[in-house]
Amino acid sequence: MSKELVFGHKNPDTDAISCAIEYAYLANKLGDEVEAVALGKTNNETNFVLNRFNVKAPRVITKAKPEVDSVVLVDHNEAIQSVDDLADVTVTSVIDHHKINFTSAQPLFYRAEPIGCCSTIIYKMYLENNVEIPSNIAGLMLSSIISDTLLLKSPTTTDDERKAVPALAKIAGIDDYEAYGIEMLKAGSDVNDRSATD
Amino acid sequence: MSKELVFGHKNPDTDAISCAIEYAYLANKLGDEVEAVALGKTNNETNFVLNRFNVKAPRVITKAKPEVDSVVLVDHNEAIQSVDDLADVTVTSVIDHHKINFTSAQPLFYRAEPIGCCSTIIYKMYLENNVEIPSNIAGLMLSSIISDTLLLKSPTTTDDERKAVPALAKIAGIDDYEAYGIEMLKAGSDVNDRSATD
Ligand SMILES: [Mn+2]
Ligand SMILES: [Mn+2]
Ligand SMILES: [Mn+2]
Ligand SMILES: [Mn+2]
Repeated sequence: MSKELVFGHKNPDTDAISCAIEYAYLANKLGDEVEAVALGKTNNETNFVLNRFNVKAPRVITKAKPEVDSVVLVDHNEAIQSVDDLADVTVTSVIDHHKINFTSAQPLFYRAEPIGCCSTIIYKMYLENNVEIPSNIAGLMLSSIISDTLLLKSPTTTDDERKAVPALAKIAGIDDYEAYGIEMLKAGSDVNDRSATD
Repeated sequence: MSKELVFGHKNPDTDAISCAIEYAYLANKLGDEVEAVALGKTNNETNFVLNRFNVKAPRVITKAKPEVDSVVLVDHNEAIQSVDDLADVTVTSVIDHHKINFTSAQPLFYRAEPIGCCSTIIYKMYLENNVEIPSNIAGLMLSSIISDTLLLKSPTTTDDERKAVPALAKIAGIDDYEAYGIEMLKAGSDVNDRSATD
């Protein structure tokens, strides 16, 4: 298989950025050449998460076709939220947890579940494929679930998230995930953040 | 969860009919009330299969809403191939192996894989959920794969099908799946079949 790019939606949130990194790591472990990229700059919350777990922000692209023939969509499926030249490339996989508005010319992998966070699905894919979750990837998954479910309090939260959070906190070395989550959510809402006012 | 109907596409082939029966059995085992129905009469090939494995043909419906609020689509996803009043019900799950042309108002389960047969996906779901496959369900799965892949010879055939066929033949009590497959495909192409000329 030739190289693919994986990315979340425009105006990326923590789940969109994390899913791309999580998916690329899994695909690479399974023998596929996949690079995580982003469709926009990371926000304050995501910067806090990436710093905390020592992960580099994915580079930002606006077009895919100059680099690859095929792409993977995570945390979104609708063309309007995706890369500008989506019509010029083949989507080979979609992993998502949103309502669907999607058309393809060929069969593909599509995995959607009506759950709180897309990273929860990718967490399950690691388990299904027996791929060990590195500590920093677990940190991204944990942070995404906390972000998308507002610390397991959103009505979209499912048992999958309630089970994943303590398991991921352990792998990530986070003793008190509630305290961490509140710190993270606060970082995301910090309007005094220097980069936001620069 | 209230009762749901599951069905394959209009002008049903063996995979469309079998997937509905296979899915309903699995869902019932997992505690959901799901009934397999069909969007048209079974064809000669499918009648041969249902007779061989002593399975009743699903009843035919043209509308879903008079009976249920939500449905599951197997072996198709496009509204034009589906029940006439699809817009009046909620699709809670799609299991399919075709190109996608699908829109939903809410998140749902969607599992598509670019493989030879939809029954192969449902076979994997039985394995993933540790649900024992009854002999007659294995016979339907085997027959669907033979039908959709023309005895593993179509270009859409994948390793998933090549692995499933001998395993399913064993459960179904079919010693020579090639001989069975040729007999089945011949039954499907028998233009002298009485019911086709009646
Ligand atoms: Mn998102
Ligand atoms: Mn998300
Ligand atoms: Mn079919
Ligand atoms: Mn099929």
